[in-house]
Amino acid sequence: MKSIIHIVTPIVTRGVRTLDDVDPFRRPDLEIRHSLLDSGPVSIESEFDEALSVPDTIQKAIDAERDGANAIVIDCMGDPGLNACREAVSALVIGPSQASMHMAALLGHKFSFITVLERLRPMIANLVAQYGLAQSYASFEAVDVPVLDIENNLDEVQNSLIECGLRAVREAHAGALVLGCTGFLGCADAMSSALSAQGYRVPVIDPIPLSVHLADALLKSGMSHSKTIYASPASKPLVGYDMQM
Amino acid sequence: MKSIIHIVTPIVTRGVRTLDDVDPFRRPDLEIRHSLLDSGPVSIESEFDEALSVPDTIQKAIDAERDGANAIVIDCMGDPGLNACREAVSALVIGPSQASMHMAALLGHKFSFITVLERLRPMIANLVAQYGLAQSYASFEAVDVPVLDIENNLDEVQNSLIECGLRAVREAHAGALVLGCTGFLGCADAMSSALSAQGYRVPVIDPIPLSVHLADALLKSGMSHSKTIYASPASKPLVGYDMQM
Amino acid sequence: MKSIIHIVTPIVTRGVRTLDDVDPFRRPDLEIRHSLLDSGPVSIESEFDEALSVPDTIQKAIDAERDGANAIVIDCMGDPGLNACREAVSALVIGPSQASMHMAALLGHKFSFITVLERLRPMIANLVAQYGLAQSYASFEAVDVPVLDIENNLDEVQNSLIECGLRAVREAHAGALVLGCTGFLGCADAMSSALSAQGYRVPVIDPIPLSVHLADALLKSGMSHSKTIYASPASKPLVGYDMQM
Amino acid sequence: MKSIIHIVTPIVTRGVRTLDDVDPFRRPDLEIRHSLLDSGPVSIESEFDEALSVPDTIQKAIDAERDGANAIVIDCMGDPGLNACREAVSALVIGPSQASMHMAALLGHKFSFITVLERLRPMIANLVAQYGLAQSYASFEAVDVPVLDIENNLDEVQNSLIECGLRAVREAHAGALVLGCTGFLGCADAMSSALSAQGYRVPVIDPIPLSVHLADALLKSGMSHSKTIYASPASKPLVGYDMQM
Amino acid sequence: MKSIIHIVTPIVTRGVRTLDDVDPFRRPDLEIRHSLLDSGPVSIESEFDEALSVPDTIQKAIDAERDGANAIVIDCMGDPGLNACREAVSALVIGPSQASMHMAALLGHKFSFITVLERLRPMIANLVAQYGLAQSYASFEAVDVPVLDIENNLDEVQNSLIECGLRAVREAHAGALVLGCTGFLGCADAMSSALSAQGYRVPVIDPIPLSVHLADALLKSGMSHSKTIYASPASKPLVGYDMQM
Amino acid sequence: MKSIIHIVTPIVTRGVRTLDDVDPFRRPDLEIRHSLLDSGPVSIESEFDEALSVPDTIQKAIDAERDGANAIVIDCMGDPGLNACREAVSALVIGPSQASMHMAALLGHKFSFITVLERLRPMIANLVAQYGLAQSYASFEAVDVPVLDIENNLDEVQNSLIECGLRAVREAHAGALVLGCTGFLGCADAMSSALSAQGYRVPVIDPIPLSVHLADALLKSGMSHSKTIYASPASKPLVGYDMQM
Repeated sequence: MKSIIHIVTPIVTRGVRTLDDVDPFRRPDLEIRHSLLDSGPVSIESEFDEALSVPDTIQKAIDAERDGANAIVIDCMGDPGLNACREAVSALVIGPSQASMHMAALLGHKFSFITVLERLRPMIANLVAQYGLAQSYASFEAVDVPVLDIENNLDEVQNSLIECGLRAVREAHAGALVLGCTGFLGCADAMSSALSAQGYRVPVIDPIPLSVHLADALLKSGMSHSKTIYASPASKPLVGYDMQM
Repeated sequence: MKSIIHIVTPIVTRGVRTLDDVDPFRRPDLEIRHSLLDSGPVSIESEFDEALSVPDTIQKAIDAERDGANAIVIDCMGDPGLNACREAVSALVIGPSQASMHMAALLGHKFSFITVLERLRPMIANLVAQYGLAQSYASFEAVDVPVLDIENNLDEVQNSLIECGLRAVREAHAGALVLGCTGFLGCADAMSSALSAQGYRVPVIDPIPLSVHLADALLKSGMSHSKTIYASPASKPLVGYDMQM
Repeated sequence: MKSIIHIVTPIVTRGVRTLDDVDPFRRPDLEIRHSLLDSGPVSIESEFDEALSVPDTIQKAIDAERDGANAIVIDCMGDPGLNACREAVSALVIGPSQASMHMAALLGHKFSFITVLERLRPMIANLVAQYGLAQSYASFEAVDVPVLDIENNLDEVQNSLIECGLRAVREAHAGALVLGCTGFLGCADAMSSALSAQGYRVPVIDPIPLSVHLADALLKSGMSHSKTIYASPASKPLVGYDMQM
Repeated sequence: MKSIIHIVTPIVTRGVRTLDDVDPFRRPDLEIRHSLLDSGPVSIESEFDEALSVPDTIQKAIDAERDGANAIVIDCMGDPGLNACREAVSALVIGPSQASMHMAALLGHKFSFITVLERLRPMIANLVAQYGLAQSYASFEAVDVPVLDIENNLDEVQNSLIECGLRAVREAHAGALVLGCTGFLGCADAMSSALSAQGYRVPVIDPIPLSVHLADALLKSGMSHSKTIYASPASKPLVGYDMQM
Repeated sequence: MKSIIHIVTPIVTRGVRTLDDVDPFRRPDLEIRHSLLDSGPVSIESEFDEALSVPDTIQKAIDAERDGANAIVIDCMGDPGLNACREAVSALVIGPSQASMHMAALLGHKFSFITVLERLRPMIANLVAQYGLAQSYASFEAVDVPVLDIENNLDEVQNSLIECGLRAVREAHAGALVLGCTGFLGCADAMSSALSAQGYRVPVIDPIPLSVHLADALLKSGMSHSKTIYASPASKPLVGYDMQM
Repeated sequence: MKSIIHIVTPIVTRGVRTLDDVDPFRRPDLEIRHSLLDSGPVSIESEFDEALSVPDTIQKAIDAERDGANAIVIDCMGDPGLNACREAVSALVIGPSQASMHMAALLGHKFSFITVLERLRPMIANLVAQYGLAQSYASFEAVDVPVLDIENNLDEVQNSLIECGLRAVREAHAGALVLGCTGFLGCADAMSSALSAQGYRVPVIDPIPLSVHLADALLKSGMSHSKTIYASPASKPLVGYDMQM
């Protein structure tokens, strides 16, 4: 059986880098599809941005399922609309933050979350609390570069990521690192090498590739999210949205 | 100083009951204002409904602040958009679920959350986890009546609420009860009496009145939410929303 | 309805500063009353001091209720006798530490507790554990000045408080600060300004004003502590105390 | 070296049963001494009772140390004054509830606490939270007989204890039982036998004998409580107490 | 790249059922290999059995890596020797209990663990505690049939599994079920159907298929466990073991 | 009654120091016996070493009980085989790590664990999690000297232990210290003195003496571990072990 996995990037622009730049997913039994939003923010750097990305993310998830996707991966580490999308569709929905945190805990005992902006610290703490992973959460680290500036400062960002990684491993005793912004797509290898050169062998998780492979593994195991927990919403009027379910 | 407290009901319809029906807030130093949404769901009974209520809730909070409100109370026990609203405005924003849970823990050692639908159990568990109140959370109870049917079944709902309350107190050892749907506005007294008749003297929290009085208390103490934690969003393009900040 | 709120200062002396010095409570619907102890310590800086303050604190709470108080606020951040007083009276009893910690968690995601002496660290940790607020507790900070020396070293104490506040915000990522000694009454504004000048906008909680306003809010909401959880003590002989209940 | 262990029974009366009735402590290297209070309650069944037992308990601990005791055991499962006594003296102070809960967790994975009155449930939950043992706490069970009626209803109390024990083992999966009232002194053996007859082999902890033997073990290991954590109180005036330190 | 995944069944006998009976793994990019132990127990039903399975499990993991395996899955829900194997080899080692619990938490909010024997309750609680998943652990359920009797009582076992599943979903509010014995291989589908017929749509995890697919996903993502956390053991004498590393 | 306490040192060599060097246990009512392993590692510094020490540790526990021991103390701070030994015998089995951590929490509010190697940090975190003591765990500290080099570097090790202890007390606010390697036998007094000279009075726990005295205390109280929780293993074939039960 072929897995059709649809990635929804919950912003209106192409993002820092695309899947075409770094695509490790070519396999005959896997088809990757992709959408951007029609309405929403240009980047997600706050709970405000995230809130405004959710309605169209839900619509894109509904569209993706209708078009035959078996799984939907939300391409943002705030996991915007994860639970609402799970209610709206039956196809498996994966949030890369939840997926990466679970895998990091499994592989490295404790993990650090390394992201763009210091201001996301409470938002990530809320995700960790909700996902029940506080015991495995070693630290939060931030390079403090706005998302839209990453592409133009890639060397600086990479060096800063490596510093964050070393601090996480040495001071917070992290055994795995989660790259906390999908804009860091492709940075994991350089970080792994740099950490390894300092004697640290810890997995560095690039969330979107991991989420795609994990979604595929769950599909091959016949699993989706629970529709009892994430029950379909009741059908009733909705003003101001042209939501097609 | 007069407190101007603006209640945003995050649905497009009048709701089960209005503040005009049960208004305990008349005080010379307190002015209550109110908005409904222009776009959003007719009731909130899922994470899907909640997600679609958030964008216009944020807009209404921004409008309320611009019109002079000192505090904004979101009139739904899912606290939709609480953090995003706190980012968007400087006026104090109160989520009735967070406020009620903290007060219930303070007054009754452990609390139960009694709401409309069984399907909200994981959503409330997520709020409790995020608010850091798991140790004080005794149980979740549901009357299992859709929000929009409450008004037509008030007697049955009240009896069912009392049963839930007795179960919470006897089996889960709750020392306070949070009415987990703002549609239960006004039911608290009947529940208190019924529990008291059975020998249980536990506070029954009617979330909107409590939230209004608590907001007023915080204003009189000169307090608002932290703008370092809930920092204002960066100014950047936003497609498909005509958000006035 | 007028709220009559009685503050019991659980020491035998006037304390560092009085309510007359800094009284933000003047409102027509609020009457503030006050008692000191007849027997007990001159200041509370240990579990020993606290233990010896409790019996007469209970008596003063009983007296206050008999004289018509609707709520009693215990004026010490160890919340001495909080549960015993709640058993002894039906009027709402508020401990300023419990009240401030809950409000700080609600407004700032995580809070630090800044107090006089390093030796109080385990005592505060015990309160946090009991109140179920560990997830929201960012750090404990101490200026290390004995309570009775605060008044004569106010400038130094204020500077030290600001240093503690900056450390709490920068290193422990606190989003709210609780002034952990009622002797700091009135220092909150200076701290807020100093933190704000450094770019940090976090609420600084002055516990007694907050507790009074919160008590008033709970009274206006018709709430008191649970008399099922804090049940009245059985009537039985008591040797060596002339307790009037 | 001989261990001199002083038991302070924090009430003014002889109690339900005395150490003379059931004394398993006769050993040449162990001397047991005993005090009652001069002022305090006749039994401890509330936080109110407990609060009034503490001042004279501290005095009796100070007296016991001055008279040569190496360790002091407080003979009440609310551990009244435990921390204050540890501040007041350097001799090891043991609270039987803390000691029993730790030993029960060590021997049986999870423990239930079986005591006299349902109303003590929140008080015991507070002790468990403070002692950091929530993960090992299986359940609270109560026979619901006032302390002073135990002696006259011993058969009924024993049967009720056995029922509580079976419920704890079967429903809460407790692997050890803590007898949560020192008035149950001597009931452990009968409970063990009854549970064993039903196929359950779980330790039943009689707190005072255990506390005495544990105190002796700690003395033989050269251990006392930390005087950095439980630092001696500063010397300063104290009104209304004739405390001899 | 082809994933070579080696399953080590940590007992000396063929087990209840083999991979040949139920093999959902046929894929061109995946090769499954398998070993039994030469020394160890015939089934694992206690910590004693588990302890004696570990030394040869480690040897078989070392052998598997030397023979070219990219990942090793330990075929027992006690995850025997998981950490020791991770130290001994660099190839990814997966414990099916850890993997299933993480996936169940991700898909179903809270999970129940359904296994053979009531006596395994504390052992599973210890795994949950170690893996940091207590918040997501809904309940433990047991069919109470010895492992070696499963094959001869398959109908009864299946009915009992369904009863356990319904209890987990209805009373413990589990949103996912982990089949806690690898001997239940193949029972998941029947359980899913039975639960679905009662209106419950919750994933039922068959741990070995899931672990194999998850191992494959991690290999495709370039991930292994952290060799800093699970560092290779120092080389030093070892008496009585002919361990080939 | 005389307590016969059998210490099993779970390695094949004499270890860093023996009980003959430092024996504080001479008492007429206490007999100490001792075994080494016949097969296993020369020291325990990893989960791998620990796993290979367990089978013969179980055998030695069985032998010790058959020879009349009332209690068995496993002489390694990884508590290897603790639960399996408790299943295999009815005599009380004590793990020194579990015993020391509980006593340290009881005496000092929070404890630090000071051991030989940094690489043991996750293993100790796992024990703390399993024993349910996370709230009382202040920090992990390591001198970073291999176990077998301790004897030749005793001065350096002692200095390093003191540094670790000061860091634990000053930075992690530990109120008790657990010496996390039984090879540190006898170092506790020097550490206590050094810490005391710096003004810190915190108990320093030497785990084997404490475990012996605690075992004796439990025996004198008539207690053993729960045989319902640690139920005897079923009798069934076992290949490759000549286990005599």
